[in-house]
Amino acid sequence: MRRVFFIFLLLILFRPGHSEEGMFPLSDLKTIDFQKVGFALSEGDVFSPQHASLSDAIVKIGGCTGSFISAEGLILTNHHCAFGAVQRASTPRNDYLTNGFSARDRTHEIPAKGYTVRITESYCDVSAQILNAVKNAKTFQEREQLKKKKMKEIVLRAEQEHPGKRAEVAEMFLGQTYFLFIYTYLKDVRLVYVPPRAVGEFGGDIDNWEWPRHNADFSLLRAYVAPDGSPAAYAPENVPYRPKTHLKVNPGGANEEDFVFILGYPGRTYRHRTSHFIAYQLQVRMPFVVDWYQFQMRTMEQAGKNNPAVALKLSSAIKGLANTEKNYRGKIQGLKRIHLLEKKREQEAQIQAFINSDPQRKRKYGHLLARIADLYRDKNASAQRDLVLAYLRRSVGLFRIADVLFKAAAERQKPDVDRDWAFMDRNFKRTQKSVFRALKNFVPSVDRIVLKELLNKAQRLPSDQKIAALEDLFGLNAGAERAQQIITDAYRSTRLTDSAFVARAFSMSPQQLRQTGDPILAWREKLDGVYRQLKNQQEERSGALSELLAGWSEVKRDFLKKRFIPDANGTFRLSYGHVRGYSPADAVYMEPFTTARGILEKTTGQPPFNTPPDLLQLLKTAAQKGRFLNRKLKTVSVCLLYDTDTTGGNSGSPVLNARGQLVGLNFDRTFQATINDFAWNEAYSRSIGVDIRYILWLLHHYAGADHLLQEIDFAE
Amino acid sequence: MRRVFFIFLLLILFRPGHSEEGMFPLSDLKTIDFQKVGFALSEGDVFSPQHASLSDAIVKIGGCTGSFISAEGLILTNHHCAFGAVQRASTPRNDYLTNGFSARDRTHEIPAKGYTVRITESYCDVSAQILNAVKNAKTFQEREQLKKKKMKEIVLRAEQEHPGKRAEVAEMFLGQTYFLFIYTYLKDVRLVYVPPRAVGEFGGDIDNWEWPRHNADFSLLRAYVAPDGSPAAYAPENVPYRPKTHLKVNPGGANEEDFVFILGYPGRTYRHRTSHFIAYQLQVRMPFVVDWYQFQMRTMEQAGKNNPAVALKLSSAIKGLANTEKNYRGKIQGLKRIHLLEKKREQEAQIQAFINSDPQRKRKYGHLLARIADLYRDKNASAQRDLVLAYLRRSVGLFRIADVLFKAAAERQKPDVDRDWAFMDRNFKRTQKSVFRALKNFVPSVDRIVLKELLNKAQRLPSDQKIAALEDLFGLNAGAERAQQIITDAYRSTRLTDSAFVARAFSMSPQQLRQTGDPILAWREKLDGVYRQLKNQQEERSGALSELLAGWSEVKRDFLKKRFIPDANGTFRLSYGHVRGYSPADAVYMEPFTTARGILEKTTGQPPFNTPPDLLQLLKTAAQKGRFLNRKLKTVSVCLLYDTDTTGGNSGSPVLNARGQLVGLNFDRTFQATINDFAWNEAYSRSIGVDIRYILWLLHHYAGADHLLQEIDFAE
Repeated sequence: MRRVFFIFLLLILFRPGHSEEGMFPLSDLKTIDFQKVGFALSEGDVFSPQHASLSDAIVKIGGCTGSFISAEGLILTNHHCAFGAVQRASTPRNDYLTNGFSARDRTHEIPAKGYTVRITESYCDVSAQILNAVKNAKTFQEREQLKKKKMKEIVLRAEQEHPGKRAEVAEMFLGQTYFLFIYTYLKDVRLVYVPPRAVGEFGGDIDNWEWPRHNADFSLLRAYVAPDGSPAAYAPENVPYRPKTHLKVNPGGANEEDFVFILGYPGRTYRHRTSHFIAYQLQVRMPFVVDWYQFQMRTMEQAGKNNPAVALKLSSAIKGLANTEKNYRGKIQGLKRIHLLEKKREQEAQIQAFINSDPQRKRKYGHLLARIADLYRDKNASAQRDLVLAYLRRSVGLFRIADVLFKAAAERQKPDVDRDWAFMDRNFKRTQKSVFRALKNFVPSVDRIVLKELLNKAQRLPSDQKIAALEDLFGLNAGAERAQQIITDAYRSTRLTDSAFVARAFSMSPQQLRQTGDPILAWREKLDGVYRQLKNQQEERSGALSELLAGWSEVKRDFLKKRFIPDANGTFRLSYGHVRGYSPADAVYMEPFTTARGILEKTTGQPPFNTPPDLLQLLKTAAQKGRFLNRKLKTVSVCLLYDTDTTGGNSGSPVLNARGQLVGLNFDRTFQATINDFAWNEAYSRSIGVDIRYILWLLHHYAGADHLLQEIDFAE
Repeated sequence: MRRVFFIFLLLILFRPGHSEEGMFPLSDLKTIDFQKVGFALSEGDVFSPQHASLSDAIVKIGGCTGSFISAEGLILTNHHCAFGAVQRASTPRNDYLTNGFSARDRTHEIPAKGYTVRITESYCDVSAQILNAVKNAKTFQEREQLKKKKMKEIVLRAEQEHPGKRAEVAEMFLGQTYFLFIYTYLKDVRLVYVPPRAVGEFGGDIDNWEWPRHNADFSLLRAYVAPDGSPAAYAPENVPYRPKTHLKVNPGGANEEDFVFILGYPGRTYRHRTSHFIAYQLQVRMPFVVDWYQFQMRTMEQAGKNNPAVALKLSSAIKGLANTEKNYRGKIQGLKRIHLLEKKREQEAQIQAFINSDPQRKRKYGHLLARIADLYRDKNASAQRDLVLAYLRRSVGLFRIADVLFKAAAERQKPDVDRDWAFMDRNFKRTQKSVFRALKNFVPSVDRIVLKELLNKAQRLPSDQKIAALEDLFGLNAGAERAQQIITDAYRSTRLTDSAFVARAFSMSPQQLRQTGDPILAWREKLDGVYRQLKNQQEERSGALSELLAGWSEVKRDFLKKRFIPDANGTFRLSYGHVRGYSPADAVYMEPFTTARGILEKTTGQPPFNTPPDLLQLLKTAAQKGRFLNRKLKTVSVCLLYDTDTTGGNSGSPVLNARGQLVGLNFDRTFQATINDFAWNEAYSRSIGVDIRYILWLLHHYAGADHLLQEIDFAE
């Protein structure tokens, strides 16, 4: 309580700056008044095409963000970001997931299989090329197809011009602006230090998306390159990568109300969408997914209950499902609570009135809202059906493999630039790898139950959404036993569980694939008409939305007289704010730092609250002394809270102080902030990081990893 | 957040007083330094044998506390305290529970059936008489029996001396001090105003035992007497009771850090018990009860699911079970969290060392702790068996009735003073009433399932705790079907569900009872040996504990050099403290006032969060204006938090400011404070009240009950 007091004194004395919505892309950094908002840096310190800058230390890794924190390629990211690699490296005998992993020197660092490190080299605006390519499209579907083709052409050309690099075109404002990014990929990534799951994931799914938090959600990895410095696959003779720059670590951490900023690769936000999108998510898609994921999780947990090997196989899948399921529950609750749907509708009515008030404006924009509404009315009319079809090839492992093989056979016949992304030469290997990875963790009994339940869903569809082809295929009208028999027979005779067969199938033509006579491939073929129709519909709608929302965005900007930041789209972003508590509910105040006290309070000995006894002992004896204390709180502070704008993909992002020094490691948002994807608000949008001092404290006191501390470059 | 700041400023400027453990009985008020701790009153203002004082305004009602708030007998207590009366007055057609009740004038006030109002008239110390009576006991059981008999003699004599009054002897310090209380009982109690359940019980079992709270847990009742002023049963010509004094209501409420105190009838605490008692509760009894009540609740909810009449019958029972179940879960969690068992053991070891350090002390007290340990070892050895037997006659409705009838027949043959309390002439009517009341809400299908499950528990008892008589009775070793058949037959042919039969049975001799041939009465008779043995055992243990703990208490006082307050025992108590927030967990701070904001946030439209639409509208429009605002928060404050020491029975207690003016209505404790019964702590023991301003705001804006506001005596 004392500390709350000091903060309020500070609040009064220093009148802190407001934090701001917006994950600024590189192209928008120039719109920030760096000094005014609180940086002790300039734009060029964050990103510069000319010289090394902070952005060179920021990488994409395992779907997350990471940062270089030493001159020898040491990367700091989240425990949950390294999770997949740790799971793959683990066996029931050598269970690094449970016990953690600590390489006593570089020779003991082990491969993080399937992991790459992506570094952003440069970007440029290619909007004109794209918009030029689509301008003569006769239908929305054609527009969508032309856009995709032009994006691929630009990518392929850029990769020719930059040998060894990868290129990507990102849509910034839907239908309006497109950027080309050039990336370097490092392919030899190794595990250096991973805490035990009970430390890195302390609190598990119960604490996930919640504050207060007490988990050390961090891992250390290292990027390696060939002795000549070029990216290379794992080889014993590879050497640590020397990044252009790396972050300095501030062992003093941050204090309440400090200015902080975050760099990273946030995934997707949808703040510029209309109320119709929110209604679809809130009322249709998210409730479907919550219910469906809960079923899958129950099924998987049941299967792993008395079988540790199966449990290990399914651990990553369960974690992923639980994460999304809780996120969506948070979103549903949050959207209702802030009445976002109603507010969006109100604003749209105001914008429509603004449009109607001027004849010229009305001619140009008058139709947009009604057209968007029509489009979503259509989408909702077949939404249940479309969701069943979508999750059939997403949740049912073997059907998913059949789907990829089936499409590969068709697409690989086409010229490279005409193929779907996943089957272009540059991406095909990755696509194949993801299939083999899924096969590794395949559990047939779970797969059959999941398929069965989707068929139940199909049977319960309203009559105007029934999927005749699916009903025929599984004899759904001939009773449950018939479907059961079809599934049992198919799972018994299919060869899709055999990775050698799958590897061969990847180079077959459609004709050859058919000749294998595999029953599950046959399912996919029989449903091809349905899926083809779905694809056409989606392309048509994407094309239409892209054009309609571009116009809507334009007039909304005129109406609000306000600059917009494009929605997050997986590209490099900066967001800034302050270390700050909040009130999630009437009479409740959340303080912005957690401490060792909370670990002691929460530890029950049962997962996910099973702090290792040696750490528990240390927290009782060493939490109040040493170099890495939170000096204000006179104890180890564990996690911290700040109001910078983040979303998924920002996991592993460094939390930096005004001078760009690392003070925390972003890993989550509060339950109220799960709706960040749809709306941001200074009052409740809070992100959660591990306090850098807790990481350092653990490395020193608990992991005995002083050799790593010596490698780290500390800010004085 | 602003308000938190001001509070901290206040904290610094005024250095508020510490609050104190202890529910002070009348006899201990003299030990309080009234001015020093924060009262603007003296002891005589609270209680005086000579003149009217605050204590005259405090009553016991419906197992709770209530207070007179007008000169014409208007009583303020909790909604949950009036619940039983409201349930009894309700029918599916006239559902006052759901819709609330508001008498538009006195003629429309309706009887609160079964409710009485108890007023404390005087008390005196009778310890010498009791201790004298037991001093020659040869066994512990004899000691216990002699004690009980002497208490009854004192009571009967007192009631002869005070015609029309009731007397009770309360054990203050176990085995040491005994007080005689003289009470007046008013028997005509009527409902005046009851908010709808969705307002009075907003948040229901989910919010129960939690902070923040947003329910208006209040009701208004009125006591009536015969036209001559004497207590009388309901009669139309009765007139409102004029209390010796009534409380003034302060419409300005209280502010954070204000001194407050509470008067009332707290039920039971066990702070002076040893670690053995805590271990028994924590490891044996409470886990059993939690599990058992959960089963009963599930069964009852299932039964009421599609049957509103059954649901209404069971509503009160479910509420009671849920309340205890959550309280015990809170206690189990809290006891573990504060390591009370370990701390008590540590302290006991210190006291034992203190005893051993002095030969004379060792002679007098040296054996006590070991003897207490022996006693609990014994108790634990048959605990599971004893719990099954106890809940057989507590949870199984018909068996409970059989038990009462069986005992009544035996006890009513004895001289009055030798009977068990429940069967003495002065209590027998009440005992009968409770049976008839239970019959009214009897649901046979639930009763059979509950009995069945208890028999399952009996079957799973460890072999050395098996209850042979029970196993024989239900043929438990002949398979589940046999028991099922016995139960079905008995429930089909018993007449215990017929209240006319039960009424006749209450005047039968044991012989006559046997001749009815009722199967469930026969069960009770066959188990009589078992229950008789249980009773002997319990008397023996009570007698032993009473003597052992008296000695232990003596030496503990010597060791701690500290005055003790006796454990709560249902007699009049005062406790004081401050309006104050707290931190239930690391990084979480609970503010001491909730506001209208929280009701809007929590309302989902679904019970228990279904605020009536008209109230919701009012909260949006009228919460920021009018006479009853919390001026500091500039909105209606709903509930408040304070650190005075309370327990069950303090429900309905007035929360009074330093001048003795009503500022709140106590109704609950926080989850962390459920362990108040075992230990109190300034850091986490918080009680919860309705802000008087919310009650007044509701009466004015929502209930349109200005006639009641006019009757209330406001402090200026």
